[in-house]
Amino acid sequence: MSLDRLIKKIAVLKNPTVVGLDPKLSYIPSFIREESFGRFGETLEGASDALLQFNRGLIDALCDIVPAVKPQCAYYEMYGWPGVRALYETIRYAQEKGMFVITDGKRNDIGSTMEAYATAHLGKVAVENNTLAPFGGDALTVNGYLGSDGIMPLVDICQSQDKGIFVLVKTSNPSSGEVQDQLIDGRPVYRMMGDLCERWGRDLPGRHGYSGVGAVVGATYPDQLEELRTALPHTFFLVPGYGAQGGSAQGVCPAFDQNGLGAIVNSSRALMCAWQKEGCDERDYANAARREAIRMRDEITACIPAISIK
Amino acid sequence: MSLDRLIKKIAVLKNPTVVGLDPKLSYIPSFIREESFGRFGETLEGASDALLQFNRGLIDALCDIVPAVKPQCAYYEMYGWPGVRALYETIRYAQEKGMFVITDGKRNDIGSTMEAYATAHLGKVAVENNTLAPFGGDALTVNGYLGSDGIMPLVDICQSQDKGIFVLVKTSNPSSGEVQDQLIDGRPVYRMMGDLCERWGRDLPGRHGYSGVGAVVGATYPDQLEELRTALPHTFFLVPGYGAQGGSAQGVCPAFDQNGLGAIVNSSRALMCAWQKEGCDERDYANAARREAIRMRDEITACIPAISIK
Repeated sequence: MSLDRLIKKIAVLKNPTVVGLDPKLSYIPSFIREESFGRFGETLEGASDALLQFNRGLIDALCDIVPAVKPQCAYYEMYGWPGVRALYETIRYAQEKGMFVITDGKRNDIGSTMEAYATAHLGKVAVENNTLAPFGGDALTVNGYLGSDGIMPLVDICQSQDKGIFVLVKTSNPSSGEVQDQLIDGRPVYRMMGDLCERWGRDLPGRHGYSGVGAVVGATYPDQLEELRTALPHTFFLVPGYGAQGGSAQGVCPAFDQNGLGAIVNSSRALMCAWQKEGCDERDYANAARREAIRMRDEITACIPAISIK
Repeated sequence: MSLDRLIKKIAVLKNPTVVGLDPKLSYIPSFIREESFGRFGETLEGASDALLQFNRGLIDALCDIVPAVKPQCAYYEMYGWPGVRALYETIRYAQEKGMFVITDGKRNDIGSTMEAYATAHLGKVAVENNTLAPFGGDALTVNGYLGSDGIMPLVDICQSQDKGIFVLVKTSNPSSGEVQDQLIDGRPVYRMMGDLCERWGRDLPGRHGYSGVGAVVGATYPDQLEELRTALPHTFFLVPGYGAQGGSAQGVCPAFDQNGLGAIVNSSRALMCAWQKEGCDERDYANAARREAIRMRDEITACIPAISIK
């Protein structure tokens, strides 16, 4: 009914971070690429296989210390339907290894179309006498520009399938203010969207104080993180923009509550490309990601209250 | 560089409508479903094959009278990666038959991630020595909540690949006003988003007065259609909500300019399910869609100025 499964996993591992799986071919060690292209040719299938093998190595190296992965749909769609198959297989593999999967698709539509997205990414679809999970993620990022008609179909599926969503509230990019900071009766658009998250979340209450309707709030806006943490006490935050985009550990601290909960911080490139930054043997890429994940975990947990759930 | 290819096609066929390909299994005649499930089992592959065969029949029956198709990604993702393969094959088939393809994905993200979506749906991706089109649509619907960082990567690809985009401005659903009608300095959010479309479109000028940055404006809001047609003289409209959602031919007229251009009106269910509404033989489903497409074309063109391009 909520994000409780994610929160529990964060508390068990004492780690409020998520690894973004946004693979580009240029991030992938040549031994993986050569093997995939050798098997499938220099095709979309070959590229997609390289993505999947790369992800599997990362998941193996991180699953006992990082609670969640966040595959970004765009990087899979970039390799066509074989890429989307690699997304599906990445989700399945991460879940087999016990990780919580946040599918970062920022999907949005209305009514029966939004129901179709909710079914695709969080639910199950009927095919004659079978009921099948098309992608089977645990949570989905969504865009609320279309209003409640675009969110309620998700809430229904979250209720029946024990899943969650994260609604874009204040994104991490420089131009996010063009729309999101504009004032409506003295209240910024991002704040209005945040208040809608609190309202939508009432139907998905959680055991640890946070509902199944989370919010995306960028690490690059610490003041807004602090404002929204106070204003939205039942809304769990997914915080992108740490590291590569300039967000710091100090900057993300206001996203957390007095129990060290309330947020999960994403890092993508810093982990995927740790082997390039370190300059280590490319076959050690997954361990380099693990070293970076430990560094990030320790850096963030040093700034926030000790993590504990009731 | 723009939506000129679409506009030309509309003028040649004298038909400013687009058929939405949002197939559900329940819309598909049993003879198609039985054949697909017989070949592939009651699986995602079977369902996806049924979607594709259904779409092919519709495209064959409509391609000489309707300028464009608009497949809605959600209905393909609902059948997992095999569904996404059916989306790819639908796009390719429609283009082979000369139709302009608007991929309705409402994608949104920032920077390099938005570049990945743009590459996926409109561009080409490099795989070692090959350059491949992952989906190869002609235009993509997008959500501008993230601001210019989320749109400029698309504009770059539209420039190099002769493609277009449609940005959500005023959507057709009842709750669209929750966000889109809110006033910012006396100007509704939808109007601000529309003004951004005019600004973004400056980099993609077209020969017929309309840029490569279009806007989605719902048929269910005729007053806003009229307001926006005047306010956004270079922005071509994609108009959903006609028919099933309650939009009328009279209601969509204000979307058009004095040359009968400026908008394309979508109909999905009314065409896909025309055979069910007519009660005709299910093997006649594609001809039923054609009859409905002709009815819709004639109804709309009767209300607008004669279509002509300079």
